[in-house]
Amino acid sequence: MTLHYPPTEASAATGFGGNAIDRMSERRDDAAFIANLRADPSGRALLFMDDRLIMADAPLFDRGDAEARGADWEGATFLGLTADGPLFAAAVPPDEMMPARGLRGLAMDDALSHELLGIAAQARSLLGWHATHRFCANCGQPTTLGQAGYRRECGACGTHHFPRTDPVVIMLAVDGERCLLGRQRRFAPGVYSCLAGFMEPGETIETAVRREIWEESGIRTGRVAYHASQPWPFPSNLMIGCFTEALSQEIEPRDRELEDVRWFDRSDIGPMLDGTHPVNGAPPPVAIAHHLLTAYARHGAPVVEVPAVVAEPVTG
Amino acid sequence: MTLHYPPTEASAATGFGGNAIDRMSERRDDAAFIANLRADPSGRALLFMDDRLIMADAPLFDRGDAEARGADWEGATFLGLTADGPLFAAAVPPDEMMPARGLRGLAMDDALSHELLGIAAQARSLLGWHATHRFCANCGQPTTLGQAGYRRECGACGTHHFPRTDPVVIMLAVDGERCLLGRQRRFAPGVYSCLAGFMEPGETIETAVRREIWEESGIRTGRVAYHASQPWPFPSNLMIGCFTEALSQEIEPRDRELEDVRWFDRSDIGPMLDGTHPVNGAPPPVAIAHHLLTAYARHGAPVVEVPAVVAEPVTG
Repeated sequence: MTLHYPPTEASAATGFGGNAIDRMSERRDDAAFIANLRADPSGRALLFMDDRLIMADAPLFDRGDAEARGADWEGATFLGLTADGPLFAAAVPPDEMMPARGLRGLAMDDALSHELLGIAAQARSLLGWHATHRFCANCGQPTTLGQAGYRRECGACGTHHFPRTDPVVIMLAVDGERCLLGRQRRFAPGVYSCLAGFMEPGETIETAVRREIWEESGIRTGRVAYHASQPWPFPSNLMIGCFTEALSQEIEPRDRELEDVRWFDRSDIGPMLDGTHPVNGAPPPVAIAHHLLTAYARHGAPVVEVPAVVAEPVTG
Repeated sequence: MTLHYPPTEASAATGFGGNAIDRMSERRDDAAFIANLRADPSGRALLFMDDRLIMADAPLFDRGDAEARGADWEGATFLGLTADGPLFAAAVPPDEMMPARGLRGLAMDDALSHELLGIAAQARSLLGWHATHRFCANCGQPTTLGQAGYRRECGACGTHHFPRTDPVVIMLAVDGERCLLGRQRRFAPGVYSCLAGFMEPGETIETAVRREIWEESGIRTGRVAYHASQPWPFPSNLMIGCFTEALSQEIEPRDRELEDVRWFDRSDIGPMLDGTHPVNGAPPPVAIAHHLLTAYARHGAPVVEVPAVVAEPVTG
């Protein structure tokens, strides 16, 4: 059974956010169940050469085709069940003759269905984790695969390692009819986006939002409203998109992470998103920043709409 | 400067959620700045023996006291600046004569201020990460400390490793005047709590909420509303607390993770929280589940209050 999402869910509309596969995670420890799935002739695999997806007519390969390209079917990571059968992910050795594409480009070109793009993100994050976590961080010895690809096990010290998912806050600070955007050096000319940064141990989402904005712009912010989240498989982030209200106006960055940080009028955002702005641009729909900006351009400052019933005074 | 939070922020009220220290994370690469902080006579450290906090009159030790207990002041992890000076965290060797307590117990007893408890959570997560990540997961060689304790660096392969923060969804599925709670075997008799589980690569928060509820109860859920988040330092989780609307009623767990899963009437929740229920109990205020349940008991199903303006139809 595929798990569906409500049609108005903001997270499901983000790039890589359309993955509703049934992961069957409660059965990953059941060796006979997993062996049956591997033997199922309807089984297909997504194949990755480093971080690029192998593309033939479709990106789904049966066991024969996958093994012909060098995949280890018995060691493939189980992604879940679809209506058409089980899906796996496997790495293949470098081969310049094989057509392969990065997930950003595939997303930009709408080369995969929204759901398959999300499944490819799941696959790429898991395979990337395997590729960079072959040794036990606790004792340094080699680890082996477990739970159909969702665990690495150290035979030397017994530690179990699970895939990393790194939460990142990405947020739009709003001051009424203006919002705060920044520019990284690698961006195309004129493009600005929401500020963002990795969460740290000991933070709430709201604390991380305020810290990152403070560091990158010197702006103080108050209330925070969650908007949407997005898996971002470069290599394995969880983007947590929020609005927050600005409490100060003067920009004075504490770090040098951004090339520029500026206020933009809300009336500029629509043209920046649809490419009709004479000077500036904004991120494409694959990015959750696009969705934060779209909601703000259409509706104004949603940060004020945090339902009062979900906020209780601090106690203790 | 300490970064404050709005007084009605649900996340700030959770156990360990009161940490508003200024982490100065943009200066961690500045060796002279960090050296100056270490030399500052107002500097203090939280000391941990494994996962327990050393307690004297207060849990804050100056350099002399910290080194007398075996701490490495020059290698201590920088937590941030407070109004009273810089704060660090360091491990000390086992010593049965030293009074030490776990953070759960300190939280239950209100033995530390709300803010200091949150800072202790940050410290414990970072020190726990150092203790279990002494080797490079990429090549197996030993790593060294960098960025004042926020990075581990591999001299052999050059990989930089950053602290883990593992996102966990914890949620209350609501069916009007009933809500869905589960019981783990380790709970005290009669105690039930919200369902929860680790997020996986490739998931949105909403997808993870629906998957975990489906696995643990067989209940299908629809819309999801974020409520609050919480750092949970056992060892380093980010608890993401949500409400969700139940779309089915019959409980039929797919896994065996919980001892029992049941519907509870909303009218039972208040007595379960304050300890006056004749049979059942609920988690204490240190747990984010307590806050989800409190909001539901007081206000009813807030899941219906997701602001319409933040939900756009799925496109692409």
